[in-house]
Amino acid sequence: MTKQQLVDQIQSKQSYLCVGLDTDIEKLPAGIPKTAAGVVAFNKAIIDATAPYCVSYKINTAFYESQGVKGWGAMEETLAHIPSTHFTIADAKRGDIGNTSAHYAKTFFEVLPFDAITVAPYMGKDSIDPFLAYTNKWTIVLGLTSNAGSQNFQQQKLMNGQFVFESVLEQVASWATAEQLMFVVGATKAEDLGVIRKIIPNHFLLVPGVGAQGGSLADVTKFGKNDAVGLLVNASRAVIFASGENDFAEKSAIAAKDYALQMKQLLG
Amino acid sequence: MTKQQLVDQIQSKQSYLCVGLDTDIEKLPAGIPKTAAGVVAFNKAIIDATAPYCVSYKINTAFYESQGVKGWGAMEETLAHIPSTHFTIADAKRGDIGNTSAHYAKTFFEVLPFDAITVAPYMGKDSIDPFLAYTNKWTIVLGLTSNAGSQNFQQQKLMNGQFVFESVLEQVASWATAEQLMFVVGATKAEDLGVIRKIIPNHFLLVPGVGAQGGSLADVTKFGKNDAVGLLVNASRAVIFASGENDFAEKSAIAAKDYALQMKQLLG
Repeated sequence: MTKQQLVDQIQSKQSYLCVGLDTDIEKLPAGIPKTAAGVVAFNKAIIDATAPYCVSYKINTAFYESQGVKGWGAMEETLAHIPSTHFTIADAKRGDIGNTSAHYAKTFFEVLPFDAITVAPYMGKDSIDPFLAYTNKWTIVLGLTSNAGSQNFQQQKLMNGQFVFESVLEQVASWATAEQLMFVVGATKAEDLGVIRKIIPNHFLLVPGVGAQGGSLADVTKFGKNDAVGLLVNASRAVIFASGENDFAEKSAIAAKDYALQMKQLLG
Repeated sequence: MTKQQLVDQIQSKQSYLCVGLDTDIEKLPAGIPKTAAGVVAFNKAIIDATAPYCVSYKINTAFYESQGVKGWGAMEETLAHIPSTHFTIADAKRGDIGNTSAHYAKTFFEVLPFDAITVAPYMGKDSIDPFLAYTNKWTIVLGLTSNAGSQNFQQQKLMNGQFVFESVLEQVASWATAEQLMFVVGATKAEDLGVIRKIIPNHFLLVPGVGAQGGSLADVTKFGKNDAVGLLVNASRAVIFASGENDFAEKSAIAAKDYALQMKQLLG
């Protein structure tokens, strides 16, 4: 999916919601078997219910890998069920030396035909280049994450006066255009989004941390929006586990619709 | 496997070789089918041939994931074939917020019963804690990697005078003991190992970059060895792809034995 196609989707729906399929098998609603097949059935129902209100789905690979071979199969089946209108993200946070990253890129761009993958920056340019080599796909690099541990390294101050995460944003942004590169920026740091937008005015930001993690959608939008909207705000648990009962799909649609309505107002 | 058991293995064999099963399906020898079953057959032959000369096997998850569901199955079968005497490492470089990292820990410590997993530090303490919660397992955190891209972030200088990678080593080492925590330190930076040993004198180092990547085993041992040896030196392509013909297993044994003999001399 090109940047223009994504922007068109967002403008047409007036929603920049990404639904995170962090499908924890232990949290499946009553009536859904706690099996890989149950995960797929649950995901399909969530996707069918929420598709009108979001523009993207993010599959968190950890929740599938922890079910072994069958979980990997459930990830494949889930991805195949997402409508082609929606931007698909493998939230995999991979990154390794070049020839290894090339295999991760093949995994999540070819074997599993996602539009995008999240990538960890610690190993530097040659660990990210194999993903960027797919110019028709998207690489989403961790910038500033929403967890407490972001203070340990990301928010350390460099000799040149930048925070480590600022150096990551600045350097990585010089390696690819906003047509194939995005950044993860946590919603719990909404006040930092203004600073971040000075470094990367044009790139899309994938923003987790709204909902269960406590970030404010209004603040994220105020500080993070650019001329092309430039935001994908992710909500996972708050949408997919909105109810633990038989009405789980209906309730997930209500939660997603509520986000979409807030987004429409914030864009208006 | 406890630290003492690992040290005993190393002392008894006079080898600290880790063989990296970076089994690229495209590089399988003539006569081995380029399928997941071929990968398993190849790995089993390599393991059987090299086991006397090494103390550890490292499975690079990327090379299995890029074969999809069948590749994940091949990883399971390969792991199951490694003798319990050998220290098993999932070279997965995972790391995410707490509840996600917990699923990765479950994946590589329970579903796939590895002894150890490699972890990326960028997201900080709460992204690593779920791995450390398995006190009977090993968490191997990226410190200084052997690729050119290590200069982009790892080797940036912090305001406090440390390099980023030194801060990673120092902080992470304060979160767990040398009984359950190791670090990845690249062999192409052997001269840095002296500095690194001042920060983390007691922790085991997993050292990639010898062999195909050009690091010197003698230098790594000189600068990196501690009283308990404290080194696992990995060779992947140089051992497993020592021959592309029918004699691939025999040639991998010769390559592994050659490393082991060098190690015996260096320890002597």
